[in-house]
Amino acid sequence: MPLMMENEVYRASTTAPVNIAVIKYWGKRDAKLNLPTNSSLSVTLSQSDLRTHTTASCSRSFTHDILILNGKEDDVSGHRTQSCFRELRALRKELEDSDSKLPTLSQQSLKIVSSNNFPTAAGLASSAAGFAALVRAIADLYQLPQSPAELSKIARQGSGSACRSLFGGYSAWAMGSAPDGSDSLAYEVAPQSYWPDMRACILVVSAEKKGVSSTSGMQLTVKTSTLFAERVRETVPARMRAMEQAIKEKDFETFAELTMRDSNSFHATCLDTYPPIFYMGDTSRAAVRAVEKINEAAGRTVAAYTFDAGPNAVVYYQEKDEALVAGQFKELLAETQGWETERGQRVQEGGKAEIDEKTAETLRVGISRVILTAVGEGPISVQDHLVDEKGEAVAV
Amino acid sequence: MPLMMENEVYRASTTAPVNIAVIKYWGKRDAKLNLPTNSSLSVTLSQSDLRTHTTASCSRSFTHDILILNGKEDDVSGHRTQSCFRELRALRKELEDSDSKLPTLSQQSLKIVSSNNFPTAAGLASSAAGFAALVRAIADLYQLPQSPAELSKIARQGSGSACRSLFGGYSAWAMGSAPDGSDSLAYEVAPQSYWPDMRACILVVSAEKKGVSSTSGMQLTVKTSTLFAERVRETVPARMRAMEQAIKEKDFETFAELTMRDSNSFHATCLDTYPPIFYMGDTSRAAVRAVEKINEAAGRTVAAYTFDAGPNAVVYYQEKDEALVAGQFKELLAETQGWETERGQRVQEGGKAEIDEKTAETLRVGISRVILTAVGEGPISVQDHLVDEKGEAVAV
Repeated sequence: MPLMMENEVYRASTTAPVNIAVIKYWGKRDAKLNLPTNSSLSVTLSQSDLRTHTTASCSRSFTHDILILNGKEDDVSGHRTQSCFRELRALRKELEDSDSKLPTLSQQSLKIVSSNNFPTAAGLASSAAGFAALVRAIADLYQLPQSPAELSKIARQGSGSACRSLFGGYSAWAMGSAPDGSDSLAYEVAPQSYWPDMRACILVVSAEKKGVSSTSGMQLTVKTSTLFAERVRETVPARMRAMEQAIKEKDFETFAELTMRDSNSFHATCLDTYPPIFYMGDTSRAAVRAVEKINEAAGRTVAAYTFDAGPNAVVYYQEKDEALVAGQFKELLAETQGWETERGQRVQEGGKAEIDEKTAETLRVGISRVILTAVGEGPISVQDHLVDEKGEAVAV
Repeated sequence: MPLMMENEVYRASTTAPVNIAVIKYWGKRDAKLNLPTNSSLSVTLSQSDLRTHTTASCSRSFTHDILILNGKEDDVSGHRTQSCFRELRALRKELEDSDSKLPTLSQQSLKIVSSNNFPTAAGLASSAAGFAALVRAIADLYQLPQSPAELSKIARQGSGSACRSLFGGYSAWAMGSAPDGSDSLAYEVAPQSYWPDMRACILVVSAEKKGVSSTSGMQLTVKTSTLFAERVRETVPARMRAMEQAIKEKDFETFAELTMRDSNSFHATCLDTYPPIFYMGDTSRAAVRAVEKINEAAGRTVAAYTFDAGPNAVVYYQEKDEALVAGQFKELLAETQGWETERGQRVQEGGKAEIDEKTAETLRVGISRVILTAVGEGPISVQDHLVDEKGEAVAV
């Protein structure tokens, strides 16, 4: 029945996680290939709390590539998306060339439908999860044999930090040195199961339009900051080694100190950019102070803050210290959205930190939502498709 | 009449200026001698707006050294004040040893009375003016022949930046290299008369207790920031050369860019300190944005912001651009204290910058006072004594 074959819709679906770096990616040495000026390392977060769900489909009946994000058609003509499509099709073509029985999916148009279980506006690393899911779903659709590390080189071209979201647990992105980017890829430092009790409390700062996009921001930093080269040359390489070691030893105190120092170092180079880039505001600063007070009260380092290219604080802690860390924030931010979730309800209030009223008030006014999550797995293949058998996007 | 001689009160009075650095001093290589990790450069501000007035007196009738600051007795036992007293007495002793007719003032107790014409709480560099006035007044009391540069080595031991307040106009502090500090002293880059049209608009941020003193803050930066060494090694030396050149050429645009970049660089190393030091808050950041908008609207760099170890913004501009810079702030902050002064009343509103409502509101809420001033002279000897002929402090 050639007619039916003609219209067959091929589908594969995946969910992919967000990751939040503890050694930050900031600066490109090649903007087209998304090659970074330094290596980076992140914790992959649980998909039960934050994930992108993506279906990749193709069919002879599709007339052009299309991408639907959270119900809205998105532009596919950008070089980032185009790079991912091109490279994945080339790998599929290799398979097809070696086995003539395979359907020539590489010649069909793609329909990608994607949806997040968290508000994109929250300024969470949605592009990392988005491109990881896109690459993983198309690779599954094409039944590519490539390893996650190989695929991470493609995801990297979509969004740098996406490469790390192809792994669960603790993953790193080796900057590499080859001009073509062939050695700039992600690898697993430790799986989720190795150190499963890492938790994260995300303090989402009331929506404020991001002043400077990270892409243009990091270019400006590379070009104008006189301190940035030192970060790239000395600071980050030393921290990468120390951080891998800390994770291997499940040494939270070292992990935490490196995380806080590296977040500060990254924001310092933003401030040293000309004109200066400010991502952290008074609310972020109050979150830093609260974490410092929580650690002081505990008599050891039980919490670590980190800030991406925005004001949100991500606070890492271990499960055993949940009452001291998340419990402290629950007490402080009782009225804030987020505690009604299952994870939120489980949190026992147990903070003993003396947080001054001004810091507390700044947090209460500035934080719009709390998201509790934990270290999680890498992309998961799912049968729940966002494109139906006829090739239509399913409303989500 | 030996009895009268016995009780004679010797007096000398001076006023000394505040200076605000454009290449920042941050970091000591020797905490006891106040030897800095890098050179710095500042603009001395007019004493008609900001000054310390100090009388140094001594008498055989005085029983111990005493210092009265703004009507309150201050501690003189600290090593900073003691170093100044000791070094100045040693110089006086040399004079006395070479001329037996001189009264032995070096053996008498000192009474120093000092008063500022601005609120100390405003977080303006009052210790710079204070120690410059103290050293200058005692040197005058002792009739020391030493040059301001020589005296600056003594003032430096009181408060690092005080050494620059012994000169008017544009002055620098050469970090030097001698372990005993003998070559760490201030020098004049250009007198006030060379480039007299430099103006400053100080935006005083509503009083908030300073989190970290600059002395302990800078020690922590030296110890913990991985980016700080680069600032000291490369960034500041290059900027010092460029800044001296810009002043010699009266090139405001270069002066301004270097000023803004160096302020940002200094605050970046504060943020890279562990734990991080934040001196700039949301109000400071709004001032940065306002200056950026003012420059954009002018189509050239007419204003430069700089921030010391606190949230106050000092905005430098040239007299010819007063309407564009101070005029813009006058329009924006019409209700704020400070425009009622003679300088304030002269300012024409003429800003054309499009400052968004959020930035404007942040400034209106956060700025408690505006101080308009200009480049000014070094210490001035005055006959208005704060100690009367009988040795009593005069109420001010």
